[in-house]
Amino acid sequence: MARLVLKFGGTSVADLDRIRNVAQHVKREYDAGNEIAVVVSAMSGKTNELVGWAKDASPMHDAREYDAVVSSGEQVTAGLLAIALQNIGIPARSWLGWQIPIHTDDTHGAARIKSIDSDNLNERFKEKQVAVIAGFQGISENGRITTLGRGGSDTSAVAIAAAIGADRCDIYTDVDGVYTTDPRIVKQASRMNKISYEEMLELASLGAKVLQTRSVEMAMNYNVPVMVRSSFDDPSKKLETGTLVCREENIVEQQIVAGIAYSKDESKISIRNVSDVPGIVAGIFGPLADANINVDMIVQNISTDGKFANVTFTTPTSDLPRALETLEAIKDSLGKPEIVSASNVTKISIVGVGMRSHAGVAAKMFKILSDRSINILAITTSEIKLSVLIDAEYTELALRALHSAYGLDAEEA
Amino acid sequence: MARLVLKFGGTSVADLDRIRNVAQHVKREYDAGNEIAVVVSAMSGKTNELVGWAKDASPMHDAREYDAVVSSGEQVTAGLLAIALQNIGIPARSWLGWQIPIHTDDTHGAARIKSIDSDNLNERFKEKQVAVIAGFQGISENGRITTLGRGGSDTSAVAIAAAIGADRCDIYTDVDGVYTTDPRIVKQASRMNKISYEEMLELASLGAKVLQTRSVEMAMNYNVPVMVRSSFDDPSKKLETGTLVCREENIVEQQIVAGIAYSKDESKISIRNVSDVPGIVAGIFGPLADANINVDMIVQNISTDGKFANVTFTTPTSDLPRALETLEAIKDSLGKPEIVSASNVTKISIVGVGMRSHAGVAAKMFKILSDRSINILAITTSEIKLSVLIDAEYTELALRALHSAYGLDAEEA
Repeated sequence: MARLVLKFGGTSVADLDRIRNVAQHVKREYDAGNEIAVVVSAMSGKTNELVGWAKDASPMHDAREYDAVVSSGEQVTAGLLAIALQNIGIPARSWLGWQIPIHTDDTHGAARIKSIDSDNLNERFKEKQVAVIAGFQGISENGRITTLGRGGSDTSAVAIAAAIGADRCDIYTDVDGVYTTDPRIVKQASRMNKISYEEMLELASLGAKVLQTRSVEMAMNYNVPVMVRSSFDDPSKKLETGTLVCREENIVEQQIVAGIAYSKDESKISIRNVSDVPGIVAGIFGPLADANINVDMIVQNISTDGKFANVTFTTPTSDLPRALETLEAIKDSLGKPEIVSASNVTKISIVGVGMRSHAGVAAKMFKILSDRSINILAITTSEIKLSVLIDAEYTELALRALHSAYGLDAEEA
Repeated sequence: MARLVLKFGGTSVADLDRIRNVAQHVKREYDAGNEIAVVVSAMSGKTNELVGWAKDASPMHDAREYDAVVSSGEQVTAGLLAIALQNIGIPARSWLGWQIPIHTDDTHGAARIKSIDSDNLNERFKEKQVAVIAGFQGISENGRITTLGRGGSDTSAVAIAAAIGADRCDIYTDVDGVYTTDPRIVKQASRMNKISYEEMLELASLGAKVLQTRSVEMAMNYNVPVMVRSSFDDPSKKLETGTLVCREENIVEQQIVAGIAYSKDESKISIRNVSDVPGIVAGIFGPLADANINVDMIVQNISTDGKFANVTFTTPTSDLPRALETLEAIKDSLGKPEIVSASNVTKISIVGVGMRSHAGVAAKMFKILSDRSINILAITTSEIKLSVLIDAEYTELALRALHSAYGLDAEEA
């Protein structure tokens, strides 16, 4: 017997048929003798509809009322799943954020969980009752409904798993696990059996949209093993597939590089012929930081005579207009440099905890790209990640070459 | 300055445009210096959709989960109206049943309000804040959401008005008041300025679908004046029209007959040639009561030789099949009488507190019908009501004749 949290996203509870399918997944785990808490999102599309209404009522809507409106979506699916479970003989009860309660701060629309009272749930587990919990929501100190922000149901699930000491948190989604890279681009991409929290965090923040970054951080902090699996698999069969996100030491066969991610959402800004005087870099990035613009990679080149510099950096494409505006405003103080931007760039990142202990991982990456005449526009590194910026047109070529070179290609079937 | 409860039904909050219109009604009353609590229903059609889903999830759905699902409809409109009010500069906050809290018993799906804690609302009135309250819902002793049953938002509104000591409860609906009879049938029907609780109760239970019976009972018990008015009137103008439901003594110009209602939802069952022995009536109506079948009017005729009786009674048409089944099962014990039923009957009722003190009201009714050769099939009376059963084809003729005879016809414009 284990204690499990099962989380089902919006596409998994999109209509009554899908909700009945979820009930079968829950039944399989329940019949195996487990104690089960289920966390559900709103039916897919429902949250967007509610958000649209709130915006229609007022573009500057009060976040507290927004939360009251939007949280109703998860309330509906929690009640419906409880009914569907009872209908197949599984004792179940729905739980809203305020009923458990899940205490959060009062940052409405993006609240953070402060504590979860597990007494109510533990009591029901003793009675063999399944708890069906509305994800994405909690209650603030002054009794108002809060929501955790988009994708918050993953965070709800992991937080509840931590609070009730669950053996595992299963995130059911529309893919059957985490892949070594995007299978739409690299046919040989394969599902990982296990991945460490650290690697998942790097991949999640790089845009592999399987898990919310916050939920992975929380899973790591509380050491909650998280299984990513598909709700579209036959619910009557024991699910063998999926990717387990867990501690590094629980992964026996460690790859040097676990996965390769890419992001097309970055833009490049080059500032050419800035006067190279002390403080000039601060003069550029200070105002950008003040304007809350995210800057990722930075490259600085000094002209041969040492008098001028070229500064290149990347920023999310969504921040690009504001970044250019900010730079235009300080252009004079920088000596009126030429400012050019480009959005046809891709950031490619290799991620793996093995990189800590293995030298030559970076050199190999540079050689592979160079062999294919792919120019590296910028580089950033972390302990377990190496990212390069390249022209977007080389994205597929680079991904395939790197995937193969780091030994990630699946065996041909 | 007054303290008001304004209640808006489903058609009044059917979409964002209608919700903005409601906000203007609230603004008018707020700007006049009143303290305002608003009670809202779900957008029209929304509750039916949620009920449909619950039924789809399981025909035998758990009433507790049904309540969790269905109560979300009012939650959405409460939040949206609060946003719409803030958008036009009115401080507002939404309140769900559990937040106030509105304590109910645990009869899920048809809960009764036990008490309402008005402290939170009173606190906000001091801050000049409008309270937007989700109607139709409360919280049970063990922390579960309850709903009050269909039309429960009227009851919520009146109960809140009683709890906060409101000067009046305004029920905004899609008609502009209570009429002396159905204006679709009688062109001369006129809107009443005032009607007593007792008369409204009789009319409400007779199918004048303006107000829920329970809400009128509660208004009477707590002496809450209730104004029925239209949300379709121009919200920018002070509303002069509407019908005030209040104590009898507050109505100066009392009509003998206040209104005339009719119901086509009744069926007639005749049992012919029952042996007229003691206990035979109990032998008929006992089993019907055991089967939870409502019986309204009863007429018994004895045959000339005193040996047989004919028993005729009415029942809601929805109960007719079960009533016939029940009678079939006891037919032998009644001496195998002939049992015939008819649904082409109408119950016409004249209602008025003046009937208590004025003789001849009934005689006048019988004469008017007799003059038009309308046969009376059955009669029932209460202190302030007189109902007759007639053939359905005479409905319009009878209504118009009675409406005119009791002086209710509006002056021609």
